[in-house]
Amino acid sequence: MTATGRFFEDFNVGDGFESETYTIDREASLAFAKAYDPQPFHLDEEAAAASLFGKLVCSGWQTTAITMRLLVDSLVLGGTGIIGTGIDELRWTAPVAPGDTLRLRAELVEKRAWPGNKPRGILRFRFETVNQDDIVVMTQCANCIVPKRGP
Amino acid sequence: MTATGRFFEDFNVGDGFESETYTIDREASLAFAKAYDPQPFHLDEEAAAASLFGKLVCSGWQTTAITMRLLVDSLVLGGTGIIGTGIDELRWTAPVAPGDTLRLRAELVEKRAWPGNKPRGILRFRFETVNQDDIVVMTQCANCIVPKRGP
Repeated sequence: MTATGRFFEDFNVGDGFESETYTIDREASLAFAKAYDPQPFHLDEEAAAASLFGKLVCSGWQTTAITMRLLVDSLVLGGTGIIGTGIDELRWTAPVAPGDTLRLRAELVEKRAWPGNKPRGILRFRFETVNQDDIVVMTQCANCIVPKRGP
Repeated sequence: MTATGRFFEDFNVGDGFESETYTIDREASLAFAKAYDPQPFHLDEEAAAASLFGKLVCSGWQTTAITMRLLVDSLVLGGTGIIGTGIDELRWTAPVAPGDTLRLRAELVEKRAWPGNKPRGILRFRFETVNQDDIVVMTQCANCIVPKRGP
């Protein structure tokens, strides 16, 4: 995929791309958890050690947010904006910890016109968020609204 | 549902609850977008006015994060921690803007034992995130790991 300004017509099912990387800052992770997911295993080393995770882990919702940042920064949909209508089968498949380095792997799995011949369509991507050890930490199917280039 | 410390055995399919409310601070919304979803319609009034939304809107991922905060603060799963394995059919059904006040409505739709008779089970909730005008802005089905009380 090229870097920017792609329209609905420019995408083909099977297209894939991989993003740059994002390393999770410890303070940012604690700040996210404090604001949005204030549970002991996201905030406190000792409590986290005694939890199902055995260590301090990031909120799964921070992983979704970081994945969005990786998608925005990839500029794959850069010229058009990325407006999601929904997500299917979001799975947190392995813990994510502060200091981990994540990247996004994507494949376009479906392309469909908007009902009523509107100047936009829906692209459905399968996303895998992967860590520095090549472990898949999150998967999802994302439906995005993408403008058409022409009538 | 009572307020805290409930275990797997304490939940029944059909149980429902509603959370307190969360009003979205404008600066927090811009900070979230800057960190995780830096697109013009989340960051700039003028660009947002020209977008599909017609006004500045929050990142859909901030709505998921706020919904988590509403769930944590509800203390429904307070004694056990809330560990999600995944989300199905997440839909952003209406825009959310800075200043909006959100709350969470939930219903338990499924209860199942963990494979292998482990001391935990899976609760599947249907969540609706609702704004101050009673418009549903987001829906999802969330699968949560909840400890059992006894063997």
